[in-house]
Amino acid sequence: MRATVMYGVHDVRVETVRDARLVEPTDAVVAVTRACICGSDLWPYNSMKPNEVGNRMGHEFIGRVEEIGSEVRNVKKGDLVVAPFAWSDGTCEFCVQGLQTSCIHGGFWGGTKLDGGQGEAVRVPLADGTLVRLPVGPDHALMPSLLTLSDVMGTGHHAARAARAGPGKVTAVVGDGAVGLCGVIAARRLGAEQIIMLGRHPDRVALAREFGATDVVSERGEAAAERVRQLTGGLGAHSVLECVGHGESMLTALSIARPGGAVGRVGVPQSDEMPEARTTFYRNVTISGGPAPVRAYIEELMPDVLEGTIQPGRVFDRVTDLNGVPDGYRAMNERESIKVMIKF
Amino acid sequence: MRATVMYGVHDVRVETVRDARLVEPTDAVVAVTRACICGSDLWPYNSMKPNEVGNRMGHEFIGRVEEIGSEVRNVKKGDLVVAPFAWSDGTCEFCVQGLQTSCIHGGFWGGTKLDGGQGEAVRVPLADGTLVRLPVGPDHALMPSLLTLSDVMGTGHHAARAARAGPGKVTAVVGDGAVGLCGVIAARRLGAEQIIMLGRHPDRVALAREFGATDVVSERGEAAAERVRQLTGGLGAHSVLECVGHGESMLTALSIARPGGAVGRVGVPQSDEMPEARTTFYRNVTISGGPAPVRAYIEELMPDVLEGTIQPGRVFDRVTDLNGVPDGYRAMNERESIKVMIKF
Repeated sequence: MRATVMYGVHDVRVETVRDARLVEPTDAVVAVTRACICGSDLWPYNSMKPNEVGNRMGHEFIGRVEEIGSEVRNVKKGDLVVAPFAWSDGTCEFCVQGLQTSCIHGGFWGGTKLDGGQGEAVRVPLADGTLVRLPVGPDHALMPSLLTLSDVMGTGHHAARAARAGPGKVTAVVGDGAVGLCGVIAARRLGAEQIIMLGRHPDRVALAREFGATDVVSERGEAAAERVRQLTGGLGAHSVLECVGHGESMLTALSIARPGGAVGRVGVPQSDEMPEARTTFYRNVTISGGPAPVRAYIEELMPDVLEGTIQPGRVFDRVTDLNGVPDGYRAMNERESIKVMIKF
Repeated sequence: MRATVMYGVHDVRVETVRDARLVEPTDAVVAVTRACICGSDLWPYNSMKPNEVGNRMGHEFIGRVEEIGSEVRNVKKGDLVVAPFAWSDGTCEFCVQGLQTSCIHGGFWGGTKLDGGQGEAVRVPLADGTLVRLPVGPDHALMPSLLTLSDVMGTGHHAARAARAGPGKVTAVVGDGAVGLCGVIAARRLGAEQIIMLGRHPDRVALAREFGATDVVSERGEAAAERVRQLTGGLGAHSVLECVGHGESMLTALSIARPGGAVGRVGVPQSDEMPEARTTFYRNVTISGGPAPVRAYIEELMPDVLEGTIQPGRVFDRVTDLNGVPDGYRAMNERESIKVMIKF
């Protein structure tokens, strides 16, 4: 089969690799029908240490179950399924609490040992806990939005929940990437009153407004924080969604939260030190979030996708086949594209 | 009148100062009957830059209302009242939400401009929002416990709430000072099942056990974290109360929180950088807390104090008069004493 392999900075190749196959009786093999490139794939794209084996890429996909192991009960051959960006057993202490990204027996796609979503097929460990059946066919018009349930929509929702977005609340979203845009959708869905998007790319900002952003702040750093204060009666936002992970974006997020407010962080932190430890303390700001337990959110969000109430699939502004994946990385990295969908 | 003034490191004096007096029509003057020395007073005791004017000290007191301004309605001359460690108007956006430590018009006792609790009398700004009447006389046996409502008991409660302590939860308390000990009381009161005290001073640890600690960890640093993991099936604590504020204690607190858990921090951070930004992210650990809105908690906690259900006054292991305050600082700083009460 063919799959995407990253060897180093800006070195993404589509190659023939060993076919995905059952290893454990709890595995399934899924033939991928849709996948995508994630903003978080750009971190290794810009910083990966060269590696001769190469890292298999992709952690967001929809596909058809081709084979199941002898112990798999919840999905069968032919089912169309969506996979969350982490696989999980569904039964451990953390899964039962809805924190599948901390599953004791789970893990993440790709790397040097597992298949990734940006390939023709994937061995899915712990298929019963991981996969969720879709009640539609593989070419349904809502496929892009359903695909976002594997990561970005659930991640935006996690940020909004961690930031305690809700009715009557002022919400600010730091980052105009696909996750930030889904964060706008999530904040609005949870009832946030004022939604301030901090971003500067005209196409993204326009989409944010369509998704429900009431204000846009295109300044950066302290100027952005000042502008948010102006927009919030000097108080700052109740809920701040940090959807980037850079030191600067985290600093902005922490500084615009009002006393008693919350920052929901879903951008993978690029530093091990968090700034503003004192100022956030004095303001009783809560800092929450992490890798979204997307698996827990798929059932919650899917009805809204199927009813068309939310349209997160609009974050895809480019479609490619597998051969076009390396150029898709380039396009996202150069901000030519918000998010690239791969159609098999 | 006489009051405690700090001039620099280890330089605490009891001096004659200008009498407390009404300035604004919303003020009251309170004659202090009980006050105490706080663990947080030891930060300036060990680090204050010398200051010729001197800083008035003390932010925890009970006293009798001596005079009220023309606009004061909620207290009258002769009332016995307890003051929270921050004064607040009770009507602003943050006060209404129960976050009086962020009151838009409020502030903190002492310093170069205001009276402190460690003196014979205090001018209380915004008396209506700040003071809470006590339904007992000034020599009531429960006075020590009632005095803790001005800070340490409410602060321990805030840590426990921020850490989401509750039924079925494993709670760890970092710090065996008066706040940590009150944190044990609070965690137990909120229903925590297992309460692990991280501390090493025999008298404090013994009191923690009487307050409800089920386990004591006397190791430090990584050894302490390892011990907590052993005590929690390898998972860590659901709720961690950070009651110190040192870099090392914060590091320990962050590292013993289980995935999906929460750290409630009430120790004033001594650094502006928070460690473990990445590891707490990957584990979805929530970091919350700050200066406790003690004013909001007084009504909630007072019935339990009056019924004797909780006995936070037991953290006082030394009583002095005003003249003994400098030696009280020394005793607390040398860990001869957990917390010193001042009786007028």
